[in-house]
Parts: sequence; structure tokens; C-alpha cells
Amino acid sequence: MARRAGRALRRTSRSTAEVSLLRFLAGKGKDMIVYDISMPIFRGMPVYKNEGKRQPDFERIRDYNEGAAETRLHIDSHTGTHLDAPSHMIPGGLAIHELPLDALVGECRILDLSYVEDRITADHLRTEDIAPGEFVLLKTRNSDVEGFDPGFVYLAPDAAEFLAGVPVRGVGIDALSVERNQPGHPTHITLFRGGVLVLEGLRLSGVAPGRYFLVAAPLKVIGMDGVPARVFLLESSLQVSYRTRQTAGY
Amino acid sequence: MARRAGRALRRTSRSTAEVSLLRFLAGKGKDMIVYDISMPIFRGMPVYKNEGKRQPDFERIRDYNEGAAETRLHIDSHTGTHLDAPSHMIPGGLAIHELPLDALVGECRILDLSYVEDRITADHLRTEDIAPGEFVLLKTRNSDVEGFDPGFVYLAPDAAEFLAGVPVRGVGIDALSVERNQPGHPTHITLFRGGVLVLEGLRLSGVAPGRYFLVAAPLKVIGMDGVPARVFLLESSLQVSYRTRQTAGY
Repeated sequence: MARRAGRALRRTSRSTAEVSLLRFLAGKGKDMIVYDISMPIFRGMPVYKNEGKRQPDFERIRDYNEGAAETRLHIDSHTGTHLDAPSHMIPGGLAIHELPLDALVGECRILDLSYVEDRITADHLRTEDIAPGEFVLLKTRNSDVEGFDPGFVYLAPDAAEFLAGVPVRGVGIDALSVERNQPGHPTHITLFRGGVLVLEGLRLSGVAPGRYFLVAAPLKVIGMDGVPARVFLLESSLQVSYRTRQTAGY
Repeated sequence: MARRAGRALRRTSRSTAEVSLLRFLAGKGKDMIVYDISMPIFRGMPVYKNEGKRQPDFERIRDYNEGAAETRLHIDSHTGTHLDAPSHMIPGGLAIHELPLDALVGECRILDLSYVEDRITADHLRTEDIAPGEFVLLKTRNSDVEGFDPGFVYLAPDAAEFLAGVPVRGVGIDALSVERNQPGHPTHITLFRGGVLVLEGLRLSGVAPGRYFLVAAPLKVIGMDGVPARVFLLESSLQVSYRTRQTAGY
């Protein structure tokens, strides 16, 4: 992206020029890269513990001879790529629609944890210079696995305590759950109580570690314990200079 | 936003400084405004023609005494704010997962059509200087109506022909359908055949006409005729200056 953006900049100006920030970002589609890091949802997709009852189902409820095709979707609140709400584990905890949308949109960082064999501990994270307010996405060997792996890499309780202590604004992982059957769900509970947003079921194999602009868009369903989300990243390696534009509005 | 951004710029520098474009956009949440233009999904929400069978349904499938709360969602492919696929009306037409995600992310423009009484015609659009590749959102009196209004403002077939002729990359409307029971669905068919993306069920009452950065995030469900989406706008009135940054990468 840096190289492509550089060409775009040269096309326009060698020195200084004014441009709409978002027109520039969007670049009419030429200069922005969108990385889709969501799981496809379909009958037969990977589901937690391979339990058949967790499979999505699709029912044709109207057809072309009635004017148009329409489908009824039967999906779980934790199907595929999804956002967890504290009410998933904590009775009376916040529901999906009570979580701040603007915290799900903004800069994020993919950490390279592909070397971790079993679980991510606080020691793995301490060296990463994680700053307060960061949204970190944990890229592990899970992203290279196609089906459901019962031995998936997860986040150990002490790592959750570390992240809640920073505190980060959110954490995402490339597994259908941020922990693996720990009694009492200490990882989830620690993150929820720490106000840390939890994204699960990401697919990060096609994206290099580094900084991106995160867009995590959960379905706006009222009162849910979790909800499927479309999550993607906009390339953020581009560096630009700016200066104040003096206008009446400032 | 222009005023807030101006302050942000002044805080950093009066002349020129380098900054990560996306760090600036995100501004750690301080300088970016997110407008959520999605309908909330709940039992009792407005549905097309008020047909009860179109209501979403929610089934608690696991509870705290089993370790965690989980829910099964039963929703239609055209529930609330959603993206239409050509296969909604055209047998063999493209399905949701075949539509380009990057065309759903980028600059858009909200047109003020709140003065239109019955339907939007080509004459209403001709004066708007709509450019090829634009994504236009049609803000009508529908955005002020809470329930389902059988007399909602819709897009007339000649307006669809006009938009497909520009061609725009997408059109969004603040009604659950882009047309109102027209025999043969000429508006839909014209847009689909013209390769125009169709967003329905937007809520635009809280957003002023003008340019924004659109994020329309449909659930990634394979093979669907439509799918619920979370749609929001990022403020784009900000104007910045930039100049080339000379690095090895360019």
C-alpha cells in the first residue's frame, strides 16, 4: 500500500496539495485495501466443538414464482466471526447493543503469536509494548487451520489479566473462543469485567502483523449475549504529512 | 467535525507534521464521528407490510447454569437494514458473497430528498450532479417514520434507469424496499442489471445531507439473496493538506 499510495501522491503533487481526507483514503477504490477477516457462514462451516446443533440453517421462504427469493436464516449468537457481550457469561452484564460502536472502529494492531504452541500467556504479551486504548488482534497458528481444532491456541487467564490491566479497548482472536473450556471461564470474565471488547472467529492468515484500521460491524440486535459480525481491516501503512488548512470553519 | 478537526490540527502543529493517516482518522476516538444508520433488530420491529411471519425470533439455547448464555437467531435475509443481492429477483443472479466488499466501503453522499411526497423520479436526481462511481444514499421523509408506512417514498423505475446510467456504484434508501409493489419489480431489476449495489432499511434522520465515509458491512453468508448488514458513516467533512513523504518505499 505504501508503494501504491506513493504513486498516488506523486500523481497529484510533489509538494503540498489539499485533498479531502476520505476521498484520499477511499481514492475511488484505487488506493485503499480492504482485508476481509471474517469467516464465511454456510451449512457445514466450522462450529465450536463440531456440535451439529451449532450449524447454521437456511430456509427458502419465498421463491421467484412468488415475485422474489427470500431466505430465513437460523444462526447462533456465536456463529462464525462474532462479538461477545458481557451478558454471555455475566448475568445482568451488558448486551451487544450496549457496547460502544465507535470502539469497534479505529486503529488496531495484529500481533504475531504464530510461534505459540498451546496458549498465549502474559509473558508473550509483555514484550509487545501494548498501549492503553489499543485494540489488539492475536494472530496464531489457528489462522492456518481450516476446520475446528479442539486444541486451538487460546488466551490464558494471566494474559487476560495483563490486557485488562493495560487496559486495551479490545482483543480479537483467530479461534471461535478466547478460551478453551477453562472452568469458570476466567479469561472471558476478566476481559468482560475489565471493559475489554472481545472478537472471536477472526481469520488472519492473509494479513501481515502490523497496524490497520479495524472495522468490526456487529449486527444491531437488541439484548443479545453475542452476535455475528462482519470484520475487516483497511490498510494503514500509509504515512502522510498534513498541515492546518486555514478556513473560516477553524 | 471540521471545527473539532481544526482544533486537533492546531494542537499538533501550525505548519507541517507527519502523522499516520489512520491514527489521525481514528484519533484514538477523539476526532472521528461514527453515525450508526442501521435499524435495531428486535421482536416487534418494523417489517415489510407488517407481516408477522417476517418478525425476527430469538431462542435461548443455553443458559448461565450451563456455563454461558447463548441464543439462536431466526431472521430473514431482508430483515431491517440489509443488502440486496441480484439473486433476490434474478434467478442465477449474483449472491451476497459475490458482491465486492470494497465497493461497500468508501465515500458516499446523502442526498436531501425529504421534500419528495410519493416517489423519487429521474427529475429529482438530475439536478444533483451525481458522478460515476458515487454511492448515493436517498434521505426522504421515511427516516422520520418509526413504524412501517405502506405509503413509503420509493425509487421510481425512471430514477433507477438514471442511476444505472450514470452509473453509480450503489444506492441506499431509508425504506425497507427500494420500490413499492411495482409489478415485475422494474426498479430492483434495473439496478441489479446495472451492477448497482442496493442498501435498504437505512435510518438517516440523525445525519445531515453531504459527504461521508460509508461502511456497509453485510454478514458474510454464502449464497444469499440478501443479508442483514450493519451500516454506519464516518464523518468526512474534514479537509487536510498533505505532501509526499520521501521514504525508501516510494
